[in-house]
This record gives sequence, C-alpha cells and structure tokens, in this order.
Amino acid sequence: MKLFVIKIGGNVIDDEKLLFSFLHDFTSVPEKKILIHGGGKIATELSKQLNIEPKMVEGRRITDADTLKVVQMVYGGLINKNITARLQSMACNAIGLTGADADIVQAGKRPVKDIDYGFVGDVQKVNAEKINALLDSGFFPVIAPLTHDGKGQILNTNADTMASAISVAMAKVAEVNLVYCFEKPGVLKNVEDENSVIRKMNFSDYEKYKSGGIISKGMIPKLDNAFEAIKQGVRSVTICHAKELKAITANQDRGTRLEA
Amino acid sequence: MKLFVIKIGGNVIDDEKLLFSFLHDFTSVPEKKILIHGGGKIATELSKQLNIEPKMVEGRRITDADTLKVVQMVYGGLINKNITARLQSMACNAIGLTGADADIVQAGKRPVKDIDYGFVGDVQKVNAEKINALLDSGFFPVIAPLTHDGKGQILNTNADTMASAISVAMAKVAEVNLVYCFEKPGVLKNVEDENSVIRKMNFSDYEKYKSGGIISKGMIPKLDNAFEAIKQGVRSVTICHAKELKAITANQDRGTRLEA
Repeated sequence: MKLFVIKIGGNVIDDEKLLFSFLHDFTSVPEKKILIHGGGKIATELSKQLNIEPKMVEGRRITDADTLKVVQMVYGGLINKNITARLQSMACNAIGLTGADADIVQAGKRPVKDIDYGFVGDVQKVNAEKINALLDSGFFPVIAPLTHDGKGQILNTNADTMASAISVAMAKVAEVNLVYCFEKPGVLKNVEDENSVIRKMNFSDYEKYKSGGIISKGMIPKLDNAFEAIKQGVRSVTICHAKELKAITANQDRGTRLEA
Repeated sequence: MKLFVIKIGGNVIDDEKLLFSFLHDFTSVPEKKILIHGGGKIATELSKQLNIEPKMVEGRRITDADTLKVVQMVYGGLINKNITARLQSMACNAIGLTGADADIVQAGKRPVKDIDYGFVGDVQKVNAEKINALLDSGFFPVIAPLTHDGKGQILNTNADTMASAISVAMAKVAEVNLVYCFEKPGVLKNVEDENSVIRKMNFSDYEKYKSGGIISKGMIPKLDNAFEAIKQGVRSVTICHAKELKAITANQDRGTRLEA
C-alpha cells in the first residue's frame, strides 16, 4: 500500500484561497492519504480576545490550562471541522480526528526541566492498526495537532512531529511518502531567494548546511524530524509549497526531497 | 445487532461528577453504542466573554456566523474531545465526530420564515453505512450536535433531533434502543415532584397528557422526536436520569419508557 502523509502549515490555513486550492489537490491524490494540519494565527487571536497572553519559547507555545482550551477549540473544533466539511464537499471522505479519537496518538506530558511547557505532549505511541482500519474503511483522516495522555487529558502537540511520528508508525504497514506543505517552495540556500531551493539533500548534506549556517533555525526541528522519519523507514520526505502538492504526488520534481 | 443510541444533555455535561460516573456507565454497556452530547453552558459563557450576545427563540439558539464559530469550537473541540479522551482513559474506544466527519449526518440550512435561525441545520440524511463501518471496526462514535450541508458549511443542529434521526437510520440495520439521559428521573406528571415519573407512555397517552397540560413545553419537542423515532422502527425510547443509564441498559425498569 502506498500512503501519503501530508502536513499543511499554519500560514496556509490562514490563506483562504491557497487553502481551498490545496484541499482540491489533496482530494485529487488517488492514493490513500492522511492530512495533518497546523494551527495558524486563529488560536493566538482568540487568546488575545480572551485576554490570555500568548507565551512562546523557542517557537513553541506554552500551554497553560486556558491556552489548552483555546487550542483544543480552535484546532479540534474550528479548523479541523472546517477542513473536513470542505473536503466532504469535494467528495473526499474526510474524517476529522485528534490523537484522542480512536486512540490514534498517545503522548506524555512534557517533563518540566528548564521550561514548563504546560499541557504539551510528546508523542509516545501511534496506533497504526486503528489508523489502518479507518483507511481500509475508505476514510481519509484529517488530524489536528492534539493528542491525549491515556488518562483523560488532551495535550497540545507539534504538528510536524505528529506528521513524522504517524509516518514512521505507518511505514511498518505501508510505503509512506511524507510531504510537508508550507508557504515556501522548499528548503532555501538563501532565505531571501525563492529560486535557491535545495532540490535533494541527504543527511550528510544536511550536516554540512547546518554547520555552514545555511539552513536557518526555524527549519532545523522540521528537518531533524524529517531525517528521523527516513531513518525509521519512511520512503521519502518532501518539503514544498502547498500549491505544488499535486505535482509532488504525481512524482514530479518539486520542492526539497530528502533521502537517507 | 443490538445498538444503544444514548443522548446526554447539557446540564449533565456541566456537572463534572455526574458526567464522570455517566461515562463510566456508558463504558460498561456491553452492546454496541453511540453517544450524542448536547452543549451545556460553556458555549453561552464563551459567547459572553467574546461579547457575542446569545439569542434564543423558543429554546433554540439563533446561530449567526460568530455564534457558529463558538458552538463549533465548544461542541466539536472542547466538549467532544474531553468526553472522548475520558472514555479512552476508561478503555472505551471512543471516536469523537461531528456530522461532517465521514459524512455521517448531512443537514439543510433551515429556511427563513418568521425567524432566521442563521446557521442552524435540519437533518436531511444520516449515513448509516458509514456509522456501521465505524461500529464494525470496534469504534464507539461520540457525536457533537453539529452537521454539514455537503457544500462545505458546518451547521448547528439540535442534539435531541440528531439522536432520533441517527436512531431511525440505524434501525434499518440494528435493533435500536434510544436513551435520553438528563438531570431528571423521567417524564414527570408534576414537574415539582420527582416521584411522579410516568413509567410507560404510548402515543395516545402522550396526546392526552399534552391536551391536559400535564406535559410541559420543554418536554414536547423531545417527546415528538421520540415518538417519531418509534414510528420509524426504533425499538424503544427511554427518558431517564443520567445516573440510571446502567440500570436501563441492563433492562431494569427506570425512567419513562415510550412505546408505539
């Protein structure tokens, strides 16, 4: 079985027109597929409206009890269901889920060291069998970046990490292609120049780019995740612009393709 | 196949302790089962915090675009996922859904006559085949009172109506017992007296109670729904206190049982 695990970033979700055409392209992917979506600005805006001061440390949101409510509502209720309803209108049999639903992704609350991240979950177990049962029934999971701890608590989990953890787990039963879609054409040698896309990169290239300071800070966790996924059996990882999903899934050479 | 369709009302959701014991009892039901939950006070409170004035006409919420966002977030994200995570912690393999997910319940936006209800949906189609596929895979659907119109729009739908529409659709493939759980011991002859539960009621009894003014206004839409469900093949409908679910599912005589 060939399976696409496709992650769509927050900036695309905030761009109504781009999101719409992306969902059309997702619908047209003929293989089995899973969509994992990020959060976008809406959670931050709602927090402000509710006078909850958003706190970020190293690009990660600190999730206190009030912030958890906000992300749970925005990711699990608003964004997830809007995407699902739209995919359904395009005749894609989407089913919107969090990690708690059907117990597909369990996480552990991140231990407090220097930083107390609050209700943030690090993925511990992906239930490939349950995800497979849903795919087998003809459903296409649309997964919000939320997990549960198995003790009744919802946790906030990074969407990139969820995408790679789900890909790794599914790699045991399928040929998995992981695609990270965002608002840039791929990994850039020069962040100012959209024509400087690195077309292919193996792990030793990555190490060189990192030590040379060519790959920027925000991209490092994403690429670490991606190479980890490849090490653990994921067939390919592609990082590309959301508008290039269709070309990528048709095996055309776009974005940045990572290899072992 | 025997199937329980169980609806839990908003007042129970607002009562943390009662909800917890209810979810335990739901978990212990050995048959296949579906949970449909109402809204509770949280949506009204969040609307107030966001300065959205809640509007009610004849017990129904008027759902403008901002209110829809609130109920979508609260019902689909907060309540639905909290219930699902708790059921999972009790080893009940719950899967939280709205009508949009897997296209299980489609609705039409209510036509504007005297009142413009806004984004309120009247159920048009329940996809029993898809619900059955989920039950067959060992999942227990937990359904929020939200539907979709098939054109990408989420709609706010009355939870009682969803419970009865789902029961009717499932009655074609299963022996369905519909149970409405709320904070009273059943349909009361005297609303002031909790010992005045009507144990059994057929449709002609109901007509008499209505014309005699014995059955109060708030109960009428619930009972209309319930008798409609029976007419359309649902085996039994029981209206009972949330704490009596276990007794009801073990065939003990509690609450009000409706018959054809």
